[in-house]
Amino acid sequence: MSKSLKIDRQRLISKIEELGKIGALEGGGVCRLALTDEDKAGRDWVIARMKSLGLTVRIDQIGNVTGTRAGKSDEAPVMMGSHIDTVRTGGYYDGNLGVLAGLEVIACLNDAGIVTQRPVAVAFFTNEEGSRFAPDMMGSMVHQGHLDLETTLNVVGIDGSLVREELERIAYRGEDPCGGMRAHAFLELHVEQGPILEKEGIEIGAVEGVQGISWTEVRISGVSNHAGTTPMSMRHDAGYCAAKIAVFARELALRMGGNQVATVGAIDLKPNLINVIPNHAVMTVDLRNTDEALLQEAEAELHHFLQKLTADEQVSIESTTLARFEPVVFDPEMVALVEAEAKAQGLTVKRLPSGAGHDAQAFAPNCPTGMIFVQSAGGISHNVKEYTKPEDIEAGANVLLQVLLKKADSED
Amino acid sequence: MSKSLKIDRQRLISKIEELGKIGALEGGGVCRLALTDEDKAGRDWVIARMKSLGLTVRIDQIGNVTGTRAGKSDEAPVMMGSHIDTVRTGGYYDGNLGVLAGLEVIACLNDAGIVTQRPVAVAFFTNEEGSRFAPDMMGSMVHQGHLDLETTLNVVGIDGSLVREELERIAYRGEDPCGGMRAHAFLELHVEQGPILEKEGIEIGAVEGVQGISWTEVRISGVSNHAGTTPMSMRHDAGYCAAKIAVFARELALRMGGNQVATVGAIDLKPNLINVIPNHAVMTVDLRNTDEALLQEAEAELHHFLQKLTADEQVSIESTTLARFEPVVFDPEMVALVEAEAKAQGLTVKRLPSGAGHDAQAFAPNCPTGMIFVQSAGGISHNVKEYTKPEDIEAGANVLLQVLLKKADSED
Repeated sequence: MSKSLKIDRQRLISKIEELGKIGALEGGGVCRLALTDEDKAGRDWVIARMKSLGLTVRIDQIGNVTGTRAGKSDEAPVMMGSHIDTVRTGGYYDGNLGVLAGLEVIACLNDAGIVTQRPVAVAFFTNEEGSRFAPDMMGSMVHQGHLDLETTLNVVGIDGSLVREELERIAYRGEDPCGGMRAHAFLELHVEQGPILEKEGIEIGAVEGVQGISWTEVRISGVSNHAGTTPMSMRHDAGYCAAKIAVFARELALRMGGNQVATVGAIDLKPNLINVIPNHAVMTVDLRNTDEALLQEAEAELHHFLQKLTADEQVSIESTTLARFEPVVFDPEMVALVEAEAKAQGLTVKRLPSGAGHDAQAFAPNCPTGMIFVQSAGGISHNVKEYTKPEDIEAGANVLLQVLLKKADSED
Repeated sequence: MSKSLKIDRQRLISKIEELGKIGALEGGGVCRLALTDEDKAGRDWVIARMKSLGLTVRIDQIGNVTGTRAGKSDEAPVMMGSHIDTVRTGGYYDGNLGVLAGLEVIACLNDAGIVTQRPVAVAFFTNEEGSRFAPDMMGSMVHQGHLDLETTLNVVGIDGSLVREELERIAYRGEDPCGGMRAHAFLELHVEQGPILEKEGIEIGAVEGVQGISWTEVRISGVSNHAGTTPMSMRHDAGYCAAKIAVFARELALRMGGNQVATVGAIDLKPNLINVIPNHAVMTVDLRNTDEALLQEAEAELHHFLQKLTADEQVSIESTTLARFEPVVFDPEMVALVEAEAKAQGLTVKRLPSGAGHDAQAFAPNCPTGMIFVQSAGGISHNVKEYTKPEDIEAGANVLLQVLLKKADSED
């Protein structure tokens, strides 16, 4: 019977719309920065929904909230979840979808009177976005033991506030120990936040992992000179070097292919005048790959190119690593399970990496972890225009439901 | 006897230093923006020097000052000159050298009791730099009939002041009609303001002309997107396009060779963030050549490249011409004469173009015009560190003297 179980699209959509009204921005979109009054109002609303579904609600010391539904056994639960904090100009779906789809799955089980072997739980984690407090994925990282609780409680936000004080102020500094709850498996439904599924007309993404990130700041010092009187052969043009690096980054990504991407998002030249050869450039290079060895190869190629450019153009180039995260690889069996369940439901499915970070990656080293992506219209996210079609939300939630049932009732 | 005539290095250097004290900046350098009190003080000082040399001083309606020494005949004079206004952080040599070397030549003729066939004159022209009032080369352009007097008198400066009022305020709105004085020939000694002579160890530059200038602003509109989630094949990256154009400009100049130069001095990206693909870029392309046909070829190649990039990257690109000046070609006989006189004095000499504009170019269409360049240490100008060695100044002034004598005593 559980094979034919389906979520209620209309119920799920209406819950997404209800939560979206909390912290709604004029003209569309949502602002519920972590631990603000708007975040508190969202939390209160989700907890009320958890309780109405009969879940046992617990809050831990970093403010993560878990609603658990009992199983036949007392084993570790299969967890679903994501976050409900948003960026300053956020949409309805990023994070919220994973939480509310999890609760819709629970509602389905309730309606059908199904009791799973293991308990199942839905969680939302504190400050996934990192828009007010660094780092992002704060709650899930503390939850899974990757960040120290005390250090994290003392983080100061962009507005000078303390995580600890803000947790206390909104009454979400819970008593449960962090990392006390182990999950049998973790599942997160999320919008892709990229264009691939929509572009290829595919309904479900079986997420293989999260790209590793390498951020480099490159500072180039050349010689400022007159654009008219300085022959090409006598130039030490920091602006040209910056341009050459940006073109190299593009070519590197195309040459490596696969999941390698490279972006030069920022370039600042000095003096930045039409008729003066720039003597100074600061730029960023963002390299990402799902494969750590390939990411290291990309970094090495960039480094080698900078050395060559230093010699060719007789400039000085300094590079600094601004951020470095290794790729996260999700359990292959979970990826296969998501793929199989999507196919079993007659949905089109594609394996793909996540280009953004998610709470699921905190769980990946500790338990089998899976992520399900659904389309983002136009690939747009972190934007008030973020949108996912109701039929895609329904498809994703149905895959979540079936994968959850598999994990909650299976031996492994 | 005139063949062995030499200028007095020490006298010339001491005059350069004296004038450099007027408007001196703390820590070095000079600020005598056009028509300011400092400019007036400089003008007064030069006129006193002209009078002490027995010159007849005339001031025209745009404030150009000419000191004339009678010749045997009443024909049009051979003129020397340049400017004494400076940029905000100027040096001792730019402009001033051409005026003071002209006066040193006069002093030499006086000392030797030489009377030339034609009259000779030394002029300094109002607002060559254009740092306070646009356009630059204002006085010489009005003097030679390329700019309208009335229009120019009504130009408003960066500080809101009017050319006409400032001329009256400092008592330099003269009565002589502009363009009333025709020159038999015009000669300007100037610092190179570029690195070529120093780099090649050459003492004298025989200036063949002034580069034509083509300034283009390029505005690129692409699509902003997430640096992690957007595959390389789905990008419309305005920043990459800007970089590609900057690299193309360099390669174009190298491929064309000769006197072609190309500079991308300014690039501004939006949103200019490390992890966002830029959706907007504004940049400048500065193309210069001494040959109008080649400059047009460079412009056409740039235009074609922008079209190709628009198609390849599926972005939109708008380009606007910000400035366009045709190259100025100096009289080949004058170039040859400068070269021959330099060689006759045992100096090393090289023909080269000027990358910057000069008062001489206003005269080029109207009479045989020649320019003599001497080294700029490090190619540096428009800078308080501007420097030219005394021996180079001496060499340049001696070439000026001999070329002047040739033109003042010749039939043509």
